[in-house]
Amino acid sequence: MSLDDDPQDPIPTDYDIAQSTDMEPIWELVEPWGLGLDDLQYFGEYTAKVKHHAIDRLRENAENKEENLVLVTGMTPTPKGEGKTVTTVGLGQTLNHLGEDAMIAIREPSLGPVFGVKGGAAGGGRSQVLPMEDINLHFTGDLHALTAAHNLIAAMLDARLSQGNDLDINVNDVAWKRALDMNDRALRETVVGLGGESGGTPREDGFKLTAASELMAVLCLASDLEDLKERISRIIVAYGEDGETITVDDIEATGPVTMLLRDAIKPNVVQTIEGTPAFVHGGPFANIAHGTNSLIADKAAFGMGDYLVTEAGFGSDLGAEKFMNIVCRLGDMTPNAVVLVSSVRALQYHGLDQWPVDFDEIDESGVDAVEAGFENLDKHVSNLQKFGVPVVVALNRFPDDTEEEVQAVLDHCEEDLGVRVAESEVFEKGSEGGEDLGNHVIDAVEESDEDEFEYLYDEEAPIKEKIETVATEIYGADGVKFTGGALDDIDRMQDLGFDDVPVCMSKTFHSFSDDASKKGAPEGWELEISEVYPSAGAGFIVALTADALTMPGLPQRPAAADMDIDEDGNISGLF
Amino acid sequence: MSLDDDPQDPIPTDYDIAQSTDMEPIWELVEPWGLGLDDLQYFGEYTAKVKHHAIDRLRENAENKEENLVLVTGMTPTPKGEGKTVTTVGLGQTLNHLGEDAMIAIREPSLGPVFGVKGGAAGGGRSQVLPMEDINLHFTGDLHALTAAHNLIAAMLDARLSQGNDLDINVNDVAWKRALDMNDRALRETVVGLGGESGGTPREDGFKLTAASELMAVLCLASDLEDLKERISRIIVAYGEDGETITVDDIEATGPVTMLLRDAIKPNVVQTIEGTPAFVHGGPFANIAHGTNSLIADKAAFGMGDYLVTEAGFGSDLGAEKFMNIVCRLGDMTPNAVVLVSSVRALQYHGLDQWPVDFDEIDESGVDAVEAGFENLDKHVSNLQKFGVPVVVALNRFPDDTEEEVQAVLDHCEEDLGVRVAESEVFEKGSEGGEDLGNHVIDAVEESDEDEFEYLYDEEAPIKEKIETVATEIYGADGVKFTGGALDDIDRMQDLGFDDVPVCMSKTFHSFSDDASKKGAPEGWELEISEVYPSAGAGFIVALTADALTMPGLPQRPAAADMDIDEDGNISGLF
Repeated sequence: MSLDDDPQDPIPTDYDIAQSTDMEPIWELVEPWGLGLDDLQYFGEYTAKVKHHAIDRLRENAENKEENLVLVTGMTPTPKGEGKTVTTVGLGQTLNHLGEDAMIAIREPSLGPVFGVKGGAAGGGRSQVLPMEDINLHFTGDLHALTAAHNLIAAMLDARLSQGNDLDINVNDVAWKRALDMNDRALRETVVGLGGESGGTPREDGFKLTAASELMAVLCLASDLEDLKERISRIIVAYGEDGETITVDDIEATGPVTMLLRDAIKPNVVQTIEGTPAFVHGGPFANIAHGTNSLIADKAAFGMGDYLVTEAGFGSDLGAEKFMNIVCRLGDMTPNAVVLVSSVRALQYHGLDQWPVDFDEIDESGVDAVEAGFENLDKHVSNLQKFGVPVVVALNRFPDDTEEEVQAVLDHCEEDLGVRVAESEVFEKGSEGGEDLGNHVIDAVEESDEDEFEYLYDEEAPIKEKIETVATEIYGADGVKFTGGALDDIDRMQDLGFDDVPVCMSKTFHSFSDDASKKGAPEGWELEISEVYPSAGAGFIVALTADALTMPGLPQRPAAADMDIDEDGNISGLF
Repeated sequence: MSLDDDPQDPIPTDYDIAQSTDMEPIWELVEPWGLGLDDLQYFGEYTAKVKHHAIDRLRENAENKEENLVLVTGMTPTPKGEGKTVTTVGLGQTLNHLGEDAMIAIREPSLGPVFGVKGGAAGGGRSQVLPMEDINLHFTGDLHALTAAHNLIAAMLDARLSQGNDLDINVNDVAWKRALDMNDRALRETVVGLGGESGGTPREDGFKLTAASELMAVLCLASDLEDLKERISRIIVAYGEDGETITVDDIEATGPVTMLLRDAIKPNVVQTIEGTPAFVHGGPFANIAHGTNSLIADKAAFGMGDYLVTEAGFGSDLGAEKFMNIVCRLGDMTPNAVVLVSSVRALQYHGLDQWPVDFDEIDESGVDAVEAGFENLDKHVSNLQKFGVPVVVALNRFPDDTEEEVQAVLDHCEEDLGVRVAESEVFEKGSEGGEDLGNHVIDAVEESDEDEFEYLYDEEAPIKEKIETVATEIYGADGVKFTGGALDDIDRMQDLGFDDVPVCMSKTFHSFSDDASKKGAPEGWELEISEVYPSAGAGFIVALTADALTMPGLPQRPAAADMDIDEDGNISGLF
């Protein structure tokens, strides 16, 4: 989109902008950042994986230098997203433009959302990572490798089950579903193993999105290949007839599954539209897993620049909470600033209390709707402040925003909340549109005190207490109601000695509450937890609310229907 | 395996041999063959895709030079395979060693068989393509791209079905299953769309191996991106309530599906262990599709060398018949020689009339069992001679073969059949072990007369007649029994005007007949055809026998269980 007033000018798409950018060969681009030819494994001219020996060297570098970690998160978004990745990439570009050495680390797009509602997920406008069409499609094959690895576990488990069942696997207590990187609601709940004896053992099953696989979480939390293998080996895939755990190791899948991920664990380096390096690696769902790119990429980035700008998925109640309580804890990192992305559109969405979203109604609304939506923004700000990290609100400008609407947000943040705030026009202008934001972030980082950073809960606390802390402190619930077998699940987890780890809350991203229709900052409700299960490989416990979806569906008219490629290979419809 | 007599010497594995080979950067290796730096899209240092403009140039080259096409096929194999790929790679190496310019084109391995019974599929010993561990795992992601594209069609079809069904799709007449590149019997027959309204429309479904997807066949038969798109658009995915066809184009999936395959259509070039270039591209199942690598790779190879050695899957009744009647017809190619791979082991398997296979019993048998197995070999030879192409029998030597056993095969071929025959020791010795075979092939090619090549049937003939011709002439059946809805299917195909195309017979590869247990050259039986359906994108009709499997299962102890990777990334168990 463009703010250009001349209606004769066609609006350039993200793809147009990307295509008109001269990219540098990736080996030339990363050379000043400490990576040589031999450190890279190439995928075409503009994408490379960083080899293990180089990661080790970068990690050592990091120990002797400044490391400033900036997390980008957002308010509760509309279904189209409010520009977190755009802001992350734009801020990274801006910090470089302002004379700092800043690396960016973001997640890899998932084909499911690409073909569903969102289209691409490599930023946009003048704040993108390139080559956007590769990144949005198969990229270096990491998600495909994870899909294959996930389904190899499933196939080996079912083979074990149907051919003698020597492990006494309880057919009604299989914990490992299958996975595809595709939004496909018809696969959400299935029956497999039909067709008689040669077709395996009939049982209920289902598919999750690859981004929701525990293998994705494991990949993003592993420190190296050895740690990856160790984590994979302990993933729980089923329970036996006597309730004992059956792991990936028990079904002899540790070796081949790790082998399938031997390249996927190496971080991918690409370039921003302004020619600075960026890691794009790993992509766990933030509503079921921890929702941030790989720790390996973060650690490598610390060895390359003085700043690392990274993002966490969905609203701050999901991605940022998990980044603080899970990722920073497991990865021993301290954020120096948090950028909270907001938009006039999202504020109006909350102010109008919409569900489902009606963008036409939003377009016709004005300042009143913006102001009515502040309660959502305010809750995100106060939540983030609980971690002891300076907060900067970024107002991501869209072409239709009026000056009045924008000013209302700026005034509210400065005067009512007393929080740093900056307009961001990085979508339209790149780093030149992010100077105010960049300067605020630099100031925030300089003022930050790492000793003030604190987790929200002690990982040694009882499981129930950890869940209740997140529910009340972050979501604004009055309390937690454990339904179904959730309390039994918690007992089982304690019996298994798997209770002194962080909790990964699985909740809808459409609301602070577990009800997608509730906008703003809902009060007077209880969080309902229906199931609790261990992600033993990742090293956390997942607490499921009723509304969390691990396999999205396609909308009536999927984004895919408007995508095309011509005989010369030019793509359209991929934004 | 090695013939070395010293039991102290550990037998080097394929992986050991591959690891001890110094590879050349792929751009240096292909440069003398007419490909420059700009013609290649790199995947690491040793693998590249050839860009479209270079393919076009190579095609033009081919028009002005000699093109000798050698097809490698085999007798009815044991479940371990008799070394077709080894022989193909070894023969290509040998022809170069003998002073010819020979290219190789083979199929890409599928992860399903890699983790199931077969292990790797990149040749073996001193006749491999490298880097074997990449080729056997994710390689350049072609199979993953096909899996994603296949399942995007399925997801868009189910979304259409469950959200208004504006195309009046008959839920009981959906022709498009889902696909995974994994041997997983539990997915063979499933029910999807469960879990209430948000979970889609409940219906029977199932998964096939990606290699059995029509998209794979389409990719391997398309001449370029434009043709690929056109073929994809006409794939039939379901039938409407009034029996009308619903195509990929009808569900608006042509654009995104073609987009997902934009890299997969470019052929992959790698190197043999002796440093000659080889295409490894596409991998359709030969028991359900046409079973040979892509036509694009073949055409490119013709522009690079004077010889092209390629292979067709399973026994000659499956792969070679389809290569002649489908691939050569659609691609306008004429084979100059056929190499039929046999082994003492396979002859004994037929001679002992085993089912299932018992390799211990084979090891203990001798010349008598070999001779009793000749009828299988003889039938393959006489079948191939029907196409008017010179046949060379290659006896692929295994370490335990005795001189007596080998001599019996050589004598039988020379004296009883009057056909060219050569021992092949390319597994153990590389091109030095293939000199006799190579010289026979060169002689056969020189003596070949392209005018004598003929298809087995006229594509304009009635569908029933085409099926009957293959059944009686190739399989040795007395006739064909059409059961189930097969005759109705044929009527439907005629009504749709889809009858003047080749037939792709889907049959077990374990026997000439449709009964896997029948060894040798079964007589006195009728082929049973239970279903006939159009592969409108590929451009052929598939005729299904009862026994054809499109989704294999894992054995009780899958090959995967013995695969591993250490902390330095070294792989074991992948052969």
